[in-house]
Amino acid sequence: MQNNYKTLDKLNTPEDLKLVPETELVPLSRELREFLVEKLDVSGGHFASSLGALELTVALHYVYDTPKDSIVWDVGHQTYIHKILTGRKDKLVTIKKDGGISGFPKRAESEYDAFGVGHSSTSISAALGMAVANRITKNGAKSVAVIGDGAITGGMAFEALNHAGGIKEDLLVVLNDNEMSISDNVGGLTTHFSKIISGGFYNSLREKGKEVLKNIPPVFDFVKKVETQTKGMFVPANFFEDLGFYYVGPVDGHDVNELVKTLKILKDHKGPKLLHVITRKGKGYIKAENDPIKFHHVAPSFHTGVEKTKSVNIPKLTYSNIFGQWICDKAAKDKRLVGITPAMKEGSDLIRFAQEYPYRYFDVAIAEQHAVTFAGGLACQGMKPVVAIYSTFLQRAYDQVIHDISIQNLDVLYAVDRAGLVGADGSTHDGSFDLSFMRCIPNNIIMTPSNENECYHMLEFGYDYNGPAMVRYPRGTGPGVTITDSLNLELGKAKLLRKGSNKIAILNFGTLLPLAEEVSKKYDITIIDMRFVKPLDENILLDIVKTHNVIFTLEENAIKGGAGSAVNEFLINNNLHRNIYIKNFGLEDRFLTHGTKKILLEDSNISSEILINEIEKILSKK
Amino acid sequence: MQNNYKTLDKLNTPEDLKLVPETELVPLSRELREFLVEKLDVSGGHFASSLGALELTVALHYVYDTPKDSIVWDVGHQTYIHKILTGRKDKLVTIKKDGGISGFPKRAESEYDAFGVGHSSTSISAALGMAVANRITKNGAKSVAVIGDGAITGGMAFEALNHAGGIKEDLLVVLNDNEMSISDNVGGLTTHFSKIISGGFYNSLREKGKEVLKNIPPVFDFVKKVETQTKGMFVPANFFEDLGFYYVGPVDGHDVNELVKTLKILKDHKGPKLLHVITRKGKGYIKAENDPIKFHHVAPSFHTGVEKTKSVNIPKLTYSNIFGQWICDKAAKDKRLVGITPAMKEGSDLIRFAQEYPYRYFDVAIAEQHAVTFAGGLACQGMKPVVAIYSTFLQRAYDQVIHDISIQNLDVLYAVDRAGLVGADGSTHDGSFDLSFMRCIPNNIIMTPSNENECYHMLEFGYDYNGPAMVRYPRGTGPGVTITDSLNLELGKAKLLRKGSNKIAILNFGTLLPLAEEVSKKYDITIIDMRFVKPLDENILLDIVKTHNVIFTLEENAIKGGAGSAVNEFLINNNLHRNIYIKNFGLEDRFLTHGTKKILLEDSNISSEILINEIEKILSKK
Repeated sequence: MQNNYKTLDKLNTPEDLKLVPETELVPLSRELREFLVEKLDVSGGHFASSLGALELTVALHYVYDTPKDSIVWDVGHQTYIHKILTGRKDKLVTIKKDGGISGFPKRAESEYDAFGVGHSSTSISAALGMAVANRITKNGAKSVAVIGDGAITGGMAFEALNHAGGIKEDLLVVLNDNEMSISDNVGGLTTHFSKIISGGFYNSLREKGKEVLKNIPPVFDFVKKVETQTKGMFVPANFFEDLGFYYVGPVDGHDVNELVKTLKILKDHKGPKLLHVITRKGKGYIKAENDPIKFHHVAPSFHTGVEKTKSVNIPKLTYSNIFGQWICDKAAKDKRLVGITPAMKEGSDLIRFAQEYPYRYFDVAIAEQHAVTFAGGLACQGMKPVVAIYSTFLQRAYDQVIHDISIQNLDVLYAVDRAGLVGADGSTHDGSFDLSFMRCIPNNIIMTPSNENECYHMLEFGYDYNGPAMVRYPRGTGPGVTITDSLNLELGKAKLLRKGSNKIAILNFGTLLPLAEEVSKKYDITIIDMRFVKPLDENILLDIVKTHNVIFTLEENAIKGGAGSAVNEFLINNNLHRNIYIKNFGLEDRFLTHGTKKILLEDSNISSEILINEIEKILSKK
Repeated sequence: MQNNYKTLDKLNTPEDLKLVPETELVPLSRELREFLVEKLDVSGGHFASSLGALELTVALHYVYDTPKDSIVWDVGHQTYIHKILTGRKDKLVTIKKDGGISGFPKRAESEYDAFGVGHSSTSISAALGMAVANRITKNGAKSVAVIGDGAITGGMAFEALNHAGGIKEDLLVVLNDNEMSISDNVGGLTTHFSKIISGGFYNSLREKGKEVLKNIPPVFDFVKKVETQTKGMFVPANFFEDLGFYYVGPVDGHDVNELVKTLKILKDHKGPKLLHVITRKGKGYIKAENDPIKFHHVAPSFHTGVEKTKSVNIPKLTYSNIFGQWICDKAAKDKRLVGITPAMKEGSDLIRFAQEYPYRYFDVAIAEQHAVTFAGGLACQGMKPVVAIYSTFLQRAYDQVIHDISIQNLDVLYAVDRAGLVGADGSTHDGSFDLSFMRCIPNNIIMTPSNENECYHMLEFGYDYNGPAMVRYPRGTGPGVTITDSLNLELGKAKLLRKGSNKIAILNFGTLLPLAEEVSKKYDITIIDMRFVKPLDENILLDIVKTHNVIFTLEENAIKGGAGSAVNEFLINNNLHRNIYIKNFGLEDRFLTHGTKKILLEDSNISSEILINEIEKILSKK
C-alpha cells in the first residue's frame, strides 16, 4: 500500500516547488521525510545524510533557480531529496540498482546534477570554477557548494576556500554541520566547531555585541581583536573570515523557513560567503538519529527489523573483517604497530582495534594525503604504520605514496580495501586502477589474495617485509577459507593450484579465482594463484611458457597497465612470448555504472562463460 | 681564491655550532651568507630560499638536538644552510651534480635529513608522525616542521594542522613567511597574512592588550570575541588557534638571537605550537632580494653577470615557451579559454598569458587537487580550461583527474610539463610515471610530441578535442623545429618518419626521437613517431607486424605500464605478437638520482649505443 502525499504528489520539478507557498514548506518537508522513509524500506540506501539535509535541500531549490543556478553537492549521499525534487521521485526505488539511478549526483543522469561526485571535499573547487565561468560569461547564474563538516577536513576543500576567498568570487558555500561524518569526526577544526553548538544564543549575542561595540572607541577595538586571538574562539567565523569569506551562522538546518529567509538574503549578497547550518543526521527518523553510523547506509528493510535476505547461522567474514582481526592479533604481538584510517573506521573494520589500542589508533579525518605522509613520519622513528585505505581513496594520496614512502623506501603497509568493483556505489567507488598506478612505482611490493587466509597472511607478510608493501582485497566476503596458523608465503612466489593437461593456464591475481575454478570444471586447465603482482614470479612464468601454449591472465583491475600487463612485459622483454597465445582478462577501458558485481563484470567481458568461450575458440582453431 | 671564515671554518656539525657563544651567532650568520654566495657562484642552485631561512636554520640547530630531534624541511630549497651546518660544507659545490649531494634533504644522504622532500606541503604530516612516534616510544626527541607561506596553502598541510591540533601532539610548526613563494603567493590566507606584516608593533600590542583586558569583566570578553569575527582579523593567530595550535609571532626571522630565545621557550612548551617567522627571500644578497623569482634558482655564475656557457645568438625555445606562445595565440582566438596553474607561472611559462589575459588566468597557489577540480567546474559552464602542470605535480591531483574530469568526460586540456627526467632536481621532480597512471584512466587521450611544432599543434588538437586531453612534454629545449601554420594531426594517428629495409622498427613516443635517429645513421631502420599513446595507432601497428620482425618501443616513462606496455597489450591481445621480437625501452623500475639527463638515461639503459647493441645482438643471432 502506498501513502498519499498531499503536496509532494503534485511536485515533479523545482518549478513546481516554487509554486508552493512558504507557509506550506514545513508540511511539505514532513511529507518528504515520510516519503523517503517509505521508499527506502523498499530500496535501501544512504539514509541518514539525506534526512539531515532535507530542509536545506528544499530551501536551496526553493530559493535558487536550478538548473540554471548550480548546486554542487559534496560526496552525494545527501542528495536523495534533491533527486526527489528534480524529477526522479518515481525512480527513487531503483537507486543504486542495475539500470536504476545512481546513489550520487551524476551529470549524465540529470541537468540538475551540476557536478558528479563520489569522493568528498570536491564541491567548493567545482562550484568555484562554475562561479568564475558564470562571471566571465555573464550568464547571471549562481553557484552553491554544499559541504559537510566531515568533508571540509579534506585538504582540497581548504585549497578551494583559500582560492575563493582570495579572488573574492561570488560563491555560496553551505557548511552542513551535522556534528559527525561517517566516523566520529576528528581534528582540531571539529573540536572547534563543537564548541559553538551548545545553546542557540550565538546569533542574538552577535547582534547585541555589534551594538555594544558601536560606542567603543576604535583604538579599543584593536586591543580586543588582539586579545581574542590569544585563546580559541567559540565561533568558527574567524576561521572562514581569515580565508576571505563572509560568515553567516550557525542557522538551524531543520527550520526550512529560516533557511529560505537566509538564503534569499545571501543570494543577493556578492562575494564569497559561508552559511553554517546545523543539522542532525537521520533527523525525524529516531533509529537513524540514535545510530547514524549503522543507518548511514541501510539495506532494504533493515530498519523495519524484518530481515528479507535468507538467514545464515554463521555469517561469513568480509575481507575487511579479516583485516580487522589481523591488525588486533598483530598489535598484541608488536608494540610498534600503529593503525591509520582516513575516516573509515567502520568501513575498514578498525572498530575493535580502536577500542583495544586507542593510543595506537589514528583516525586522521578525511585526509588521505596526510594519512600516508603521517605514516611515513611514524616509520622514520621506528614505528610500523599500517594504513587502512580503500583503493579508490588511495588515488587521493598517490603523490605521497610515491614521494614520502616509496622514494624513501619506508616501512609502511597499505591494507587496500574495496579493490576491484564495488557494485552499488558505481564507478567513483570502484577500485579499478590501483594495480596500474602502484605497479609502476619502484620499491613497492603488491599482493593480491584470492581468499581470506591468504589475505590474513599477506598482511602479515607485508607487515614483516621491510619496505612499502600493499595488500589489495575486495569489498565483501570471499570463498570462506578458514585462517590457518601459518601459510608458506615467499616474496614473489606464486602457488600452483591445479596442474592441467590441455596446456592452457590461467594466471589468477586475486579475487576472480572462482571464475578460473569454474572453467576447470569443464576444461582440464592449469590454475596458478599468482599472489604477487610485484615482484612477479618469473620462475613459474618461465616454467609455464615451456609447458603451456595458452595463458590467460585474470584480475579485477584495468587491463591497461595491470597485472596482466606485467606478465606481458616480462614475457615480451625476455622473448618468451612467441609460442604462446596470451589473453589479458580484466576491466576494459571504460567507466562502468553501478549495479550488481556479476553483471558489471560481464559488462567488462569477465565471466566463466566468456573464459570458456575463449578457450573453445582457441581449441577449435587447432 | 677562497675566503677565510673565522667561525665557520671550524664548524662541521651541529655539535660544533652549539659551542659557539650566542653573542657570536650574528657574525656567524654573516659568514654563512658570504660563504653561500661564494659557493653558489661556482655551483648554481636555489639561492634565495636558503638565504631567507639562514638565521632560522642556525637557530634551529642551535636550540634543537639534531639528529635526535627531527627538523623536517618543507620543499627543501631552503636547506643549503642546513646542509652546510650538518657536515656537507665541503660538498656544497657538488649540489645537484652527478655524484654530488642532492638539492633537497634526503634520508639516504645524511642522518640530519629527517625526511626527504621534493613536493611541498608534506612537512607537517611527516613531523606529526615523528612526534607521535616519539611520544609512544618515549625517546625524548622533539619534532619540528619548517613550512613556507607558499607551501601552507597545499591542502595536505591543512589536513595535518587539523589532525595535530585535534590530537594535541607535541609538535612545533615554524611558518617561514617570506611573503612570496615561487610565484606571487595567492589566496585568501595570503591576503590575510599580508595584513599583519606592516609594522612590527604587533607583539607589543598583543601583550598590552592582555594587560588591559585583565581588568574587564568576563561577560564583556564574550561580546568582544563575537565582534571580532564579524570582520577580518589583522593577525593569523585565530586561524591557527582555531585549529588547536598555540600561536607565537610574528618574529623577525633574521634576528638570530631573538629566534634562539623564542625557540628555547617553545622547545619546553608541550602541545602543538606554531611559530610565525617573517623572512625575506635572498636576504643579504641585493640582486636576489630584488628579483627573487629569477634568483629562486641560479645557474652557475648567473648572478655574477658572467655567462660561462657558450653563447648562442638566438636562444632555443623551451617546450614551456612553446606552450606559453600557444596559449596566448589560442586565447586571442577563443574567449572561452582559461589558463590555470598551481603556483608555477614562471616554470610553465604563463607569464605573458597572465599579463595579457589577467581575467582568464588563475594561479590557484600550491593546490594541485583544487586546480584540476576547479577546471572541471569551469568546463561544466562552457569554458575551456587549460591546466598547466608539471608531470610530477599531476600526481597530486590524480583522484581529481579520475573523478572530476575523466568520469564526467569534461573538456579539460592538461599541458603536462617536465615529463620524463628533469636532471638536477632528481627523482622527486622526475615525471616518470604519467603515461602509466594516465593511460589506465578511461576517456583520456594522451599525446607525446617529439618536437616543438608537434607540441604546439598537439596542444591545439587537445584543446579542440571534446573531452580530457593531455600533452606531455619535457623540461628544456627540443630539436629546434619551427612552428608551422598547421600540422596534419589525426586522433590516434602516428607518423611514419623513416621507412627502413632491415625489418627493424622503432616506435617512438615523445622526447627520445633523437636516439632513434642516431641509430638510423648506422642501421636502415624504420622510425615511427607514434604521437598518441592513447588511442594507439592500431592500423600502423597492424602494418608494422606484417612488414617487420623487430619492434623497439622508446619512451621517457616507466616501462611498467607505459606506452610500450600499451603496444604489448595491443599486440598480445590481438595475437599479433608471435613473429616479432619486441623490446620496451624506457625507465627501469628504480628511482634514479640527480645529475645530467644523458647520464641518468644511460643509467636506465637508454642511449643510442644501447639500442645499437641490442640490434647487433639480434642481427648476430639471425
